[in-house]
Amino acid sequence: MAAPSEEEGAVGRRYHQRSTAMLDVPFLPFCAFLGTLGLLCVAMVGSWCQHWRGGFSLDGSSRTFNWHPVLMVTGLVVLYGAAALVYRIPYTWSGPKLPWKVLHGSLALGAFILTVLGLSAVFYFHNSQGTPNMYSLHSWIGLGTVLLFSCQWAAGFGAFLLPWAPTWLRVLYKPIHVFFGSTILLLSVASCVSGINEKLFFSLKNGTMQYKLLPAEAVFANTLGLLILIFGVLVVAALARPSWKRPDSDSPDSRQPLLAAER
Amino acid sequence: MAAPSEEEGAVGRRYHQRSTAMLDVPFLPFCAFLGTLGLLCVAMVGSWCQHWRGGFSLDGSSRTFNWHPVLMVTGLVVLYGAAALVYRIPYTWSGPKLPWKVLHGSLALGAFILTVLGLSAVFYFHNSQGTPNMYSLHSWIGLGTVLLFSCQWAAGFGAFLLPWAPTWLRVLYKPIHVFFGSTILLLSVASCVSGINEKLFFSLKNGTMQYKLLPAEAVFANTLGLLILIFGVLVVAALARPSWKRPDSDSPDSRQPLLAAER
Repeated sequence: MAAPSEEEGAVGRRYHQRSTAMLDVPFLPFCAFLGTLGLLCVAMVGSWCQHWRGGFSLDGSSRTFNWHPVLMVTGLVVLYGAAALVYRIPYTWSGPKLPWKVLHGSLALGAFILTVLGLSAVFYFHNSQGTPNMYSLHSWIGLGTVLLFSCQWAAGFGAFLLPWAPTWLRVLYKPIHVFFGSTILLLSVASCVSGINEKLFFSLKNGTMQYKLLPAEAVFANTLGLLILIFGVLVVAALARPSWKRPDSDSPDSRQPLLAAER
Repeated sequence: MAAPSEEEGAVGRRYHQRSTAMLDVPFLPFCAFLGTLGLLCVAMVGSWCQHWRGGFSLDGSSRTFNWHPVLMVTGLVVLYGAAALVYRIPYTWSGPKLPWKVLHGSLALGAFILTVLGLSAVFYFHNSQGTPNMYSLHSWIGLGTVLLFSCQWAAGFGAFLLPWAPTWLRVLYKPIHVFFGSTILLLSVASCVSGINEKLFFSLKNGTMQYKLLPAEAVFANTLGLLILIFGVLVVAALARPSWKRPDSDSPDSRQPLLAAER
């Protein structure tokens, strides 16, 4: 095999630049698309529970359970995704990072509160019905995801917003925080998919509405599962894209904690 | 907020370098760990079907179904993961890329063949039992994953191993191929998790062995589901890690197709 000439190398580089430019999706339209997709997921999970599963209540019946999918999809998928993407907005790259840190932490806290309420709904429902908790693979992955999320939030708050963490610890922890940021979203999507699948098997088992006969509810909720999966994969892909990362991520400003002025 | 001094910037960079070095896991031990985890997943899915689900046969019974989880986990998760990681082995970075391209394509083809056999097992079982196909969210995601995989393999073969694809097309398609490489593995893991969850609800429903009573089989298969999830997340993380990528990925040699000598 002949070694490529200098000229071939230059042609290759030119092709590479041109082709990369062709694939260069701008962040903001992509983000608007993701926002629409996220809102669609929230609307669909709400409609599913309202239209086919009897709506919502706080009486310990299956209508209490219905808060579980709605709060999990809204909190642990859509709001979590929004929190994760804050630093990818080009507008946040100039000026101080602190306000964006606070926004990131606040959105994540909002997501966490919805998640805990969503967990409470299913535990309350199970306890009211005398059903055991925490036996299915869905529940293991789901609770594992929430526990990881609680560690992620507490460690992020302690390392990046409180003034006491030393610089070396913040620098060491940052890639770990970023890694678990994407991982938690992927686990959350795996939980949603297995949960929707499980719920449809539970709910559609008798008469003419069996899951295997693919009634309208099954098509609707399967589609919801696919959209949640697409949302999660696209958020993780956006987070991983090098050209969408905050360019000055290692500048000293990025290590400015919330209460530094009080030191 | 005072601007950081030059000295603070230098201290920050030094911390960053030292902390990054502390997190620098070497690829080969990590790969050996992943290989062990992958083999453990294959051994566990085989043991589950052999020990608790009656073993294997080709008679259209549930023992035919048992080939489905074994072949899917072996092909679409573990062998697929091995194929995806070929270019991350530092040994492949020097010398011609072509043999590694052929290895990558061959492992992926092996994974695809096992996947198609795994799909055939469940269709044959359903048809023998008169059960409809393709109604659950698990089946939608699973078949979608296999269809994406078939497009990925065919497009990869056409673009990177056959000589007819023009250079601009190969350069344009490469990041798309890389993106779908990780995405297909994530979809495949989501399919496995929902499939294991679903199978346990199907199989453990009567008598003292109910899923909700968490018998030994449920603990074993839930653990398998968690291990598959961890395997998938770690492979995708390894693929995304910049320092483990082939450094010369844009060199003209990387665009050398299989049959170039015949042109």
